[in-house]
Amino acid sequence: MTRMKRLRAAMQSQFPSLDALLLTHPPDVRYLTGFTGSNAAVVLPISGAPARRKTSAVLFTDGRYIEQAQRQTQDATVVIAQGPVLREACAWMRRKNIRSCGFDAEHTTVATLDTLRNSMGHRDRRKFFHPVPPVVAFQRQVKSAEEIAKMRAAAQLGCALFEKVLTVLEPGKRETEVAAHLEFAARMAGAEAMSFATIVASGRRSALPHGHASTQRLPRRGFVVLDFGVMLSGYCSDMTRTVHLGPATGSERSAYDAVLEAQMAAVAAVRDGVTCAAVDEAARSVLRRSKLAEHFTHSTGHGLGLEIHEGPRIAAGQEQRLQAGMVVTIEPGVYLPGRFGIRIEDTVVVTAEKPRMLTPVTKAWIEL
Amino acid sequence: MTRMKRLRAAMQSQFPSLDALLLTHPPDVRYLTGFTGSNAAVVLPISGAPARRKTSAVLFTDGRYIEQAQRQTQDATVVIAQGPVLREACAWMRRKNIRSCGFDAEHTTVATLDTLRNSMGHRDRRKFFHPVPPVVAFQRQVKSAEEIAKMRAAAQLGCALFEKVLTVLEPGKRETEVAAHLEFAARMAGAEAMSFATIVASGRRSALPHGHASTQRLPRRGFVVLDFGVMLSGYCSDMTRTVHLGPATGSERSAYDAVLEAQMAAVAAVRDGVTCAAVDEAARSVLRRSKLAEHFTHSTGHGLGLEIHEGPRIAAGQEQRLQAGMVVTIEPGVYLPGRFGIRIEDTVVVTAEKPRMLTPVTKAWIEL
Repeated sequence: MTRMKRLRAAMQSQFPSLDALLLTHPPDVRYLTGFTGSNAAVVLPISGAPARRKTSAVLFTDGRYIEQAQRQTQDATVVIAQGPVLREACAWMRRKNIRSCGFDAEHTTVATLDTLRNSMGHRDRRKFFHPVPPVVAFQRQVKSAEEIAKMRAAAQLGCALFEKVLTVLEPGKRETEVAAHLEFAARMAGAEAMSFATIVASGRRSALPHGHASTQRLPRRGFVVLDFGVMLSGYCSDMTRTVHLGPATGSERSAYDAVLEAQMAAVAAVRDGVTCAAVDEAARSVLRRSKLAEHFTHSTGHGLGLEIHEGPRIAAGQEQRLQAGMVVTIEPGVYLPGRFGIRIEDTVVVTAEKPRMLTPVTKAWIEL
Repeated sequence: MTRMKRLRAAMQSQFPSLDALLLTHPPDVRYLTGFTGSNAAVVLPISGAPARRKTSAVLFTDGRYIEQAQRQTQDATVVIAQGPVLREACAWMRRKNIRSCGFDAEHTTVATLDTLRNSMGHRDRRKFFHPVPPVVAFQRQVKSAEEIAKMRAAAQLGCALFEKVLTVLEPGKRETEVAAHLEFAARMAGAEAMSFATIVASGRRSALPHGHASTQRLPRRGFVVLDFGVMLSGYCSDMTRTVHLGPATGSERSAYDAVLEAQMAAVAAVRDGVTCAAVDEAARSVLRRSKLAEHFTHSTGHGLGLEIHEGPRIAAGQEQRLQAGMVVTIEPGVYLPGRFGIRIEDTVVVTAEKPRMLTPVTKAWIEL
């Protein structure tokens, strides 16, 4: 069954009163149709008259994408809009006598909803559009074997980059130069892009959990946090390693050991059926024993795929249960402002047994 | 007057009945406060009791940004939220007895508005939040001298990259390898990031207006469209040049000449007080004379700054008038599916006289 058919079936069972579903979030559009353009809307007829249940989805895009849309799009009919894409989608729904339409409330702005309502021009237009949860995002959380193969390839490239970047780390080099070498190697290996702004955070900057590579020079002594990912065949990789330049102090070394123990405990807790909160707690409880929990100021991990941040959220209070086929990061860290920070992150696939590690590069202490 | 004060004055005059304004779009937050984190909300008290008119803005962010927020933030008091940032912002407004708040409808999702309304917990909570136009985006359209200096530096780096990339263009090289060299040079020169996914579109792919660098190899004969930008000090550059590998046909050469003439006509039309539609028409009318207008399938340009796409839109029907200090791209192109495409783009500053060219690298025909 295609992704579009599974979506239609899910919508028919969960929202039987809706005639159609409107999608505009580019990763959702790509997931369902293969189209990678930046401006598109998909209308999926889901219910109503029997004929409509079988009407194929329609992808609306603009004139910049005439050729690309024809070449890429599967499971949907392409329409090149003459004016704004959403207006064209609304006109199509009017012509097809669609009477109600769901939209993804998490990816539709208040202004866009206003535009949509105005475009329908119904007297009862407030009743036409209905917010629905991010149904495609839910569907995307569990990856197919084909998707996991792509994510493995992306993660393997990430691992190779880490090994390369170790050869360029040296005191006096700028963080941006380190990023330059890492990103160059990624591109030369065919990466479509980095999956997020590369983090190279050295010395005291390592205490910034999101320390994007800056023009600061690497210190003679101190940690370097390297957090980076590539996009390959549309899928994101994500990993973090922390290495030390020069000799470490005892407290630096023991903090590293604690983060590593916490990270491995959380990885070991990943399994089909376990709650996200339990995985988070596995990391947090180790850091609590080391009196470092207050410095672990973010959640333990997140899903990833076509986007770098997807569900599930692996955090305290998250009662969602992991499912086989989900791909998630496990990335505890500790941050001591003004002193140093450490983070270790892997990407793993959830299974009924031990998780499958997509980033099997060493996490042992590295002192350069 | 600081940006925050100008915003407060604009809000007081345009929306005198609102007690506060809530902002969450990261470039707006950065523009007003200097904070560059990914998760923040700013509440600006604007009206009501005299004391409130002078209450400073408050920036709410999360535990990942404790150190960074303290270091970067100007013109706002920093609050590290214990829970979700928006909930904390709402709790603060309740404590301050704020009775109404504007939000940016173009950057607030329907789901977020729902969260906000639930967080206020008012009986009349539907009356608390009011959509307002993107007021900060309007303010950001006209750049200060300091901003223009930063944009000039970013654009100059872009120009240097184009000259470098010419030395690596050769048949057989992959588009991603070309991008790799360009992006490496950008990073080594200190770029924080590319301002968008680099476009290297060669041969028949040049007919894709948004042909991101792919693993396709450069042909022995054909156009290569290079469209790229860097971020430097937070500001984006954007330029496009199209070069030809091997000898060109007559129709390729004449199409190039037409696009160049159209581009120069549109640049010449840029001036304080001119409508965006008139600038677009200056380019389009040249291509109409060359019977190429139907292949010019996008608008002529856009503003840029902290974001790669800002207002104004330089397109047919846009009656907005250019103002001195706006920074815009001028980028007509023609795309003949299955054959070739050409685009030429500069970034210019609007003045009362001739525009100031930020990307003065040659647009003359280049055959490699």
